[in-house]
Amino acid sequence: MNVKAAAEFLLSRDNFLILCHANPDGDTLGSGYGLCAALQQLKKHARVLCDDEISGQYDFIKNSVEAQDFTEECIVAVDVADTKLLGKYGAIYGDRIDLCIDHHISNVRFAQRLLLDAKAAAAAEIIYDVVAAMDVVLTKDIAACLYTAIATDTGCFKFSNTTPKTHRTAAQLMEIDFGFAEINYVFFEQKSKARLALEEKVLKEIEFFCGDKVAMVFLTKDMLSTVNIEEANGLTAITKQIEGVVIGITVKEKAKDVWKASMRSIGKYDVQQICSQFGGGGHMRAAGCTIEADRETVKNRLVEKIAEYLRTADGE
Amino acid sequence: MNVKAAAEFLLSRDNFLILCHANPDGDTLGSGYGLCAALQQLKKHARVLCDDEISGQYDFIKNSVEAQDFTEECIVAVDVADTKLLGKYGAIYGDRIDLCIDHHISNVRFAQRLLLDAKAAAAAEIIYDVVAAMDVVLTKDIAACLYTAIATDTGCFKFSNTTPKTHRTAAQLMEIDFGFAEINYVFFEQKSKARLALEEKVLKEIEFFCGDKVAMVFLTKDMLSTVNIEEANGLTAITKQIEGVVIGITVKEKAKDVWKASMRSIGKYDVQQICSQFGGGGHMRAAGCTIEADRETVKNRLVEKIAEYLRTADGE
Repeated sequence: MNVKAAAEFLLSRDNFLILCHANPDGDTLGSGYGLCAALQQLKKHARVLCDDEISGQYDFIKNSVEAQDFTEECIVAVDVADTKLLGKYGAIYGDRIDLCIDHHISNVRFAQRLLLDAKAAAAAEIIYDVVAAMDVVLTKDIAACLYTAIATDTGCFKFSNTTPKTHRTAAQLMEIDFGFAEINYVFFEQKSKARLALEEKVLKEIEFFCGDKVAMVFLTKDMLSTVNIEEANGLTAITKQIEGVVIGITVKEKAKDVWKASMRSIGKYDVQQICSQFGGGGHMRAAGCTIEADRETVKNRLVEKIAEYLRTADGE
Repeated sequence: MNVKAAAEFLLSRDNFLILCHANPDGDTLGSGYGLCAALQQLKKHARVLCDDEISGQYDFIKNSVEAQDFTEECIVAVDVADTKLLGKYGAIYGDRIDLCIDHHISNVRFAQRLLLDAKAAAAAEIIYDVVAAMDVVLTKDIAACLYTAIATDTGCFKFSNTTPKTHRTAAQLMEIDFGFAEINYVFFEQKSKARLALEEKVLKEIEFFCGDKVAMVFLTKDMLSTVNIEEANGLTAITKQIEGVVIGITVKEKAKDVWKASMRSIGKYDVQQICSQFGGGGHMRAAGCTIEADRETVKNRLVEKIAEYLRTADGE
């Protein structure tokens, strides 16, 4: 399905339930609420549903739509590659989703209609085109939703998924004065005191292995006890950004002797290969696995497998 | 002077000396070397000159031009608001600069011809238009120079100086595959071990004042001894980004009992007003001053003046 057909489909229906993925991020929320606000502007009924609580950072996105009570007739999923990602709503709505708008190449094609653009940096890039094709007037609210989605999915236009089209879409959105700099400050600069204290601990406890190519830090329950979930996100990135490090790892304590390793890599290094050996998985540059053992054993097993992998990868 | 006139002027001349400002940043270097590469493509002679050493991070920018030996006939300054900013070259070339291309509203109009666009986020945004007007073919080298300049001057499109045009220019540059993500990794993510160790110390030593609205940290010679200048940059931003903080300050030890305070603010808060009371200056949201006293006295005097300012600013 192309953008025009998706726009026509939406224009021909009413009473929309828009589903975001669980463990929601800026893209699924900005896409979902942005589309909802656009449909409401067209005098249609629409609401957004998401399993899991939505962080307070996104309040301005939630406030861009009005609460409406109606019986849903058309179900749309945004930024959702698989009904498994809908949390508890997967079982309720998974087999009757009318339209999915997504940018994941891995989309399992669960919906009756699929608008997929795997080159889009964010689902919101596609939503922007759909909204424009429906002749919706770009408001501050819609622009703020879609901009937040695109900025958060690209690390503020920093990551390799950013394309010329991503920048052009941002330019179109920024023709409306919605306060993009304040949004960027909240998502990319502002940190709580608790987060800074945690970062200080992380920096102090990073250990290096394999000739400093690997940086690893253990995040104990005790270390994380003073911060909330959002504040604990993105710590693996700290280990990966160190000069010379090609694989960065955080190992989070889930329960006694249960540790969840998150790995990030740069360049040619494929952490998915390492994590799969521990029954985990993911992508080439971002993967994870769970290991049940005491901390010292977990560390030794990880370092052993990583050293083995690096010897092969570097052809030594 | 407009873009077209500047392009025609450059096309009519040869043997260019391009001056960057001292203490060079990504914008002056990317603009200078990008323009130099463009002029060389047009079979003209051109070279770049900058007082102060250029950090190794910018090697790829320096390598985008070829070394040429000739007697300069036309002198162009890029991203230079005042000849004082040229370092020792101010005295040598300051009174005979043929063209200045700049984006600082504060430009003191020292050059015979001035192409100024104060709405441009970076001087390189203007250089892009001039290069395009000269019908230069956009190469990887030129695109990398101009992209780096724009990205570094906008915090990778994060700051309030970014405009729709900034994004459109980035989109045009990214039509060439010059590896923008690697550039962003180096400038916005990668950190040396020494920098991380320094950040850990900074985080540990931050003190809060005025109901946690002010965060201050003293950077002693001892703390900075293990890192180089670039690694010590941007520390004031760490103090400012803390939730609730409206004024962030680093106080750097320049000599015994000589301290240089750098202040950053958010929102309505004007640190230039505070710094001017100590004989310093700068902009509303970024200012500095030097105070000669022992550390404790410096701290007390700063806190006293800031508390006074905040009482007025907050109307208490």
